[in-house]
Amino acid sequence: MKIGIVGGTGDIGGGMALRLSPKYDVIVGSREETKAITTCETCRETLQVQGMECSLIGVSNQCAVDEADIVVLAIPFKHVAPILKTLTGFEDKIVVSPVNPIERTTYFYYAPPSEGSAAMMIKGMLPESATVCAAFNNIAANRWKMLEEELDYSVAVCCDDDGARQTVMEIVNNVSHLRAYDAGPLAAASVVESVTPLLLNIARFNRMRDVGVKFV
Amino acid sequence: MKIGIVGGTGDIGGGMALRLSPKYDVIVGSREETKAITTCETCRETLQVQGMECSLIGVSNQCAVDEADIVVLAIPFKHVAPILKTLTGFEDKIVVSPVNPIERTTYFYYAPPSEGSAAMMIKGMLPESATVCAAFNNIAANRWKMLEEELDYSVAVCCDDDGARQTVMEIVNNVSHLRAYDAGPLAAASVVESVTPLLLNIARFNRMRDVGVKFV
Repeated sequence: MKIGIVGGTGDIGGGMALRLSPKYDVIVGSREETKAITTCETCRETLQVQGMECSLIGVSNQCAVDEADIVVLAIPFKHVAPILKTLTGFEDKIVVSPVNPIERTTYFYYAPPSEGSAAMMIKGMLPESATVCAAFNNIAANRWKMLEEELDYSVAVCCDDDGARQTVMEIVNNVSHLRAYDAGPLAAASVVESVTPLLLNIARFNRMRDVGVKFV
Repeated sequence: MKIGIVGGTGDIGGGMALRLSPKYDVIVGSREETKAITTCETCRETLQVQGMECSLIGVSNQCAVDEADIVVLAIPFKHVAPILKTLTGFEDKIVVSPVNPIERTTYFYYAPPSEGSAAMMIKGMLPESATVCAAFNNIAANRWKMLEEELDYSVAVCCDDDGARQTVMEIVNNVSHLRAYDAGPLAAASVVESVTPLLLNIARFNRMRDVGVKFV
């Protein structure tokens, strides 16, 4: 299975490449292909030190979409619409959104677009044959990168297609100690995305770092 | 410290009375005083079987407000405004809101009032000298009642007053294995309340029961 990461050179994208490439063919996309290639080299070296093999190539964002079966949009909310407008070829693909529309004043809050959630906005921007799945929304960027530490969190997955949800949940369950939970249809993604500003507030007001969530 | 529970004969209110009355003076309020008295008798018997002493009295909702230092509004969202309109005497009290505005279709979703959250709506209905604290929002009613099981969850607390927040966090930390976290000002309560429809969806779509949350 080929997983393309749009925005694969960012904090979350790069961390996901590190965690996913030992198990899947990962295609790291970036607006600048050279940056994607550099990220892949760094990932490869980091994994080699740990004695791990990986499958990684660095390409443009468009190429990451074209080559992948599953496309992860590892981009900040404010860049999602502008970047999606420049990309084509999402037909029949599974598109994973870990995107959270968040704003901050003295605290973090959920600031969804008029569609109700980032996931629903993304669905509206893609061809009908693409299947959007919200997943990986509540994992801190730093944690993805700390390979020496297990990711011991719950991951809520929202999707309107049973097959696509199953596929994404399997990927989740293959990463470290992550555990996937079916959180209902895509329309229910807002309550998944809005956990992230809560975790950021918990971190901020209790002087913690990289807080995650477990459903118990 | 005297804790009054408005709606103390409901699922959550009755369960809170059971868990809090061994450590605090608990005043169970109800629209019908006789129901409150019955709830207190049942609680007392349940605790006696476990060899636990308690301080419990059953009264009217108004009397629970009048006699308490801290008032817990253990009522469903749709009853909050009608019940608050019938009650007075909240001046200088700490008012705890475990209330979550939730609707459901084929899934549960967050349906806050125009104030942004139940907590902010409640604040707007009370005198200025009352201090509203969102807490206990994400604990399933059933779990409160299962005395033989520990409550091993995280509890996010939102409040605009440091002293009141500290008081409420201490109460949280005194209940079973609950652990309180400062989740910021009251305006940040919406992302706490909206965890509950997520937990209900997780339970529903994964055939689980009484799902709770831990910040890790």
